[in-house]
Amino acid sequence: MLVEAPHNQNAALADKPAYDLRQIDCDPNFWYPVAWSHKVRKGKAFAARYAGHPIALIRPEKGPVYALEDRCAHRQVPLSKGLVEGDCIKCCYHGWAFDRAGKCVTVPYLNREDVGRPVKAYPCREKAGLIFIFPGDPALAESVPLPAVAQVGNPDYKTRLFSPRLKCHYSFMHENLMDMNHQFLHRRQMGSITARFLGQDKGENFLEARYSFARKGGNQPLAEALIFGKHHDLEGREQPVEEVVSIRTTYPYQTLKIHDKDGDLIMDLWVCYVPLGADQLGTQTFGLLSVKKPKWGFLLDLAWPALGIFTHRIFEEDREIVEMEQKAWRELGGDHNIEVFPIVKSLRALLAREGVPNRAAKPVSKG
Amino acid sequence: MLVEAPHNQNAALADKPAYDLRQIDCDPNFWYPVAWSHKVRKGKAFAARYAGHPIALIRPEKGPVYALEDRCAHRQVPLSKGLVEGDCIKCCYHGWAFDRAGKCVTVPYLNREDVGRPVKAYPCREKAGLIFIFPGDPALAESVPLPAVAQVGNPDYKTRLFSPRLKCHYSFMHENLMDMNHQFLHRRQMGSITARFLGQDKGENFLEARYSFARKGGNQPLAEALIFGKHHDLEGREQPVEEVVSIRTTYPYQTLKIHDKDGDLIMDLWVCYVPLGADQLGTQTFGLLSVKKPKWGFLLDLAWPALGIFTHRIFEEDREIVEMEQKAWRELGGDHNIEVFPIVKSLRALLAREGVPNRAAKPVSKG
Amino acid sequence: MLVEAPHNQNAALADKPAYDLRQIDCDPNFWYPVAWSHKVRKGKAFAARYAGHPIALIRPEKGPVYALEDRCAHRQVPLSKGLVEGDCIKCCYHGWAFDRAGKCVTVPYLNREDVGRPVKAYPCREKAGLIFIFPGDPALAESVPLPAVAQVGNPDYKTRLFSPRLKCHYSFMHENLMDMNHQFLHRRQMGSITARFLGQDKGENFLEARYSFARKGGNQPLAEALIFGKHHDLEGREQPVEEVVSIRTTYPYQTLKIHDKDGDLIMDLWVCYVPLGADQLGTQTFGLLSVKKPKWGFLLDLAWPALGIFTHRIFEEDREIVEMEQKAWRELGGDHNIEVFPIVKSLRALLAREGVPNRAAKPVSKG
Repeated sequence: MLVEAPHNQNAALADKPAYDLRQIDCDPNFWYPVAWSHKVRKGKAFAARYAGHPIALIRPEKGPVYALEDRCAHRQVPLSKGLVEGDCIKCCYHGWAFDRAGKCVTVPYLNREDVGRPVKAYPCREKAGLIFIFPGDPALAESVPLPAVAQVGNPDYKTRLFSPRLKCHYSFMHENLMDMNHQFLHRRQMGSITARFLGQDKGENFLEARYSFARKGGNQPLAEALIFGKHHDLEGREQPVEEVVSIRTTYPYQTLKIHDKDGDLIMDLWVCYVPLGADQLGTQTFGLLSVKKPKWGFLLDLAWPALGIFTHRIFEEDREIVEMEQKAWRELGGDHNIEVFPIVKSLRALLAREGVPNRAAKPVSKG
Repeated sequence: MLVEAPHNQNAALADKPAYDLRQIDCDPNFWYPVAWSHKVRKGKAFAARYAGHPIALIRPEKGPVYALEDRCAHRQVPLSKGLVEGDCIKCCYHGWAFDRAGKCVTVPYLNREDVGRPVKAYPCREKAGLIFIFPGDPALAESVPLPAVAQVGNPDYKTRLFSPRLKCHYSFMHENLMDMNHQFLHRRQMGSITARFLGQDKGENFLEARYSFARKGGNQPLAEALIFGKHHDLEGREQPVEEVVSIRTTYPYQTLKIHDKDGDLIMDLWVCYVPLGADQLGTQTFGLLSVKKPKWGFLLDLAWPALGIFTHRIFEEDREIVEMEQKAWRELGGDHNIEVFPIVKSLRALLAREGVPNRAAKPVSKG
Repeated sequence: MLVEAPHNQNAALADKPAYDLRQIDCDPNFWYPVAWSHKVRKGKAFAARYAGHPIALIRPEKGPVYALEDRCAHRQVPLSKGLVEGDCIKCCYHGWAFDRAGKCVTVPYLNREDVGRPVKAYPCREKAGLIFIFPGDPALAESVPLPAVAQVGNPDYKTRLFSPRLKCHYSFMHENLMDMNHQFLHRRQMGSITARFLGQDKGENFLEARYSFARKGGNQPLAEALIFGKHHDLEGREQPVEEVVSIRTTYPYQTLKIHDKDGDLIMDLWVCYVPLGADQLGTQTFGLLSVKKPKWGFLLDLAWPALGIFTHRIFEEDREIVEMEQKAWRELGGDHNIEVFPIVKSLRALLAREGVPNRAAKPVSKG
């Protein structure tokens, strides 16, 4: 079951100092979601956040949404508290107005234009019901593609949105999902299930692990049965589960896809963990869970609320455990994880390689 | 509209290192209010605070109120939790007694007097319903006058008290009131008003700005109309407002006075911003708002509750904005204000000149 | 009334640097209670804490309770959230199992045993309804005896348990109880009582002070009267109280015993102040109060609720005062106590001598 990391990867890492993984910031040169589209209404502004940077999302009555640093150039109060007028946002305090490029176009009580300094503008795009910004070098934004986001827009799937906040570093979430041996944590929700590691794929910026599952005890939850079908035969004997679960981190995003025995994609989860504070020890999750509609689609509609409760309970268990991991990290003053599962070791190397050590990061001995 | 600061002031400043304004403490060699008189009842003690210094205000059954450091010399617990007996305050823990000079006069379980160390006594005065202390050098207290406080005691005026706490440095409040262009912030309460800067006066320890106002849209609030009269003619056309609003910082106090077209003082606001914590980034405001009684005084009595709600709402908007300024200051690690309005530049220079840089203050380049 | 510390003790101290008493940690080479026995049920684990160290107490269905570091060796999440299976605790996250020695005996998804690192095991004992651990050097545990705990198990006494948390260093509690002149604090609950110091005993690791009490005014509380009998004669004149109150710190425990005029032990209080956080500025108290049953035992049963309220109120007053002392210590950045009572001076020397300066401790000049 154990798969060693290939030698060339270790060689690549040998030249690089290793840092505490919880002190590795997200690489800002990617598109990160910072709000749901429906939260930013026409003629209104919305306060978002990326890694300690306050971001005003502004949707004029006409034209696309745009993103500015959420601090007026004058007295640093949030522009998102202001008034949207035409294509501009007017600060609520003294009425300074900024356009979508961040240029100050009016200071109402002075007799000339352009007297104030500009504020920073972020490249901003909208896709699949999410508003993305590019927090890094704006010159790179054009060349970096937006990610594919679950099965939004595909009429064969029904999609659920979720966006919980977590008091932990994003890397704990990548590790949590990638290591399916943590099904033990969800034994109350899912019964006794054992993950079987099937194999992996990896490359410069991605890592994929595949598992199948066998039920060892407990009853299959109703919501799960409605989506995947029953996993027990008529005599109630254990039945091997034929689905394959693929978890993939394509930096900085993560997906979980379930294919049934015929190779059909029956569940497609996309998730992005967006750092909230400057220390990146808090995370705003944006997730979309697409479920294939069964032949009789109304069954899925009926199961939808139960599925919501089911996934919510599982997520709450994950939230509790990753926040306890973060708490231990704080108390111990660093990462003491002893990893034995090779796929998680590879994941940790990927996140360390693709991310950016923060200012507080201290080199650590490689264990 | 713009008025440049005179050269001599700039020259005076040139010799002084400039500090981040939010790291300038209040000069302690002034009288600061720390409690309303009615809160300190006869035979009782009261816990107040000045810039991190706990202060016990004690009002014996007979004689004037006095102020001691609010820490017993023995075990540093608050004397204000103790018992007032005669002219003394007795610590609640082991019963050590201190007189109005701070001298320890009894330790009940020891057989000699004066065994304990004294506690610090602050010069203390009472005026206009406020208890003032002199936190600086007691030797200077006699020579520094108590301020004039609005129109308290003048039978032609009715006076309202207010004392909100603010999570910000006192300087944000001076700037807020002095810059009347911030009427934009109160557009929901006051309609669309434009301030016109009329002129200023300044000296070593004061700065005064005068404005008139013109209504550009929105309805005049009822409470405002009852006090100042209507500002629209019968056809509803804009009518120039004849009142002159004078805002004055006479260090460390601030006033706002409104004179009508006949030169009568119709509103007189006095306010003092008292630092709470040692970092002076929290403020206890003590304010008195005197309103001239109209010919039919009962009209003001009728309008009084509405006036209360009106001023409360405006103050809440100011509170929210100055606390957001303070929050930005913390996040950015310093003052990033880009001031363009000369009267505010002069005010900032005044506050910097009269105050005292704190221990954490770092010199900054002058912008 | 004052008793000077003997010269030899001062001589012993002269060779030792003196530290701020609130920076002296408890000596870990003693048995400390960390939970009540009844809180740790069969087949369950319980999260306790000693000076910042999380401790999992595990009581298997069979065999004695045991104590492990409350962090899984894998990802540092609390073992106390896990499953007790047989003699082992299974981590809730990925199911790693540890035995009572802290050895990792199973990683369920790996094919060999003993793959994970062990976790620390603490010596653990149970006595008088308390679970004790030995946080220091395990090799010393055998040679250090468990303390005698009030009159638990003695049928002539009825015992009450209490375990409040306090936001202060344990030393404030030792000082509070030892200095009976603080009866002034409880004047509302107990009326006006004066403590008379009778004498002391001391040794390397203990200090005992003896007092008698005289009532000077106020009514004797009902609960007190039921236990100790009336202290006033029929004319209500002051009556000397014949009981002797002995307070003893036998490091690190503290007791208060009351003997009546016949020398019978009528009240026996045992208390241990267990540090919660790594800075030891928070305390978990474990206390047992044994009261001798009177001839008609049902009288004590009747008085029991009143006694509970009475002791609770007194304890709340103590809690408030010691937490204010701790607050002053934080604000002043150190210990400013000016002690004049010799028994408390001796107690401070004992606690300083027996404890261990923490990493932040700075030597102070001896006052």
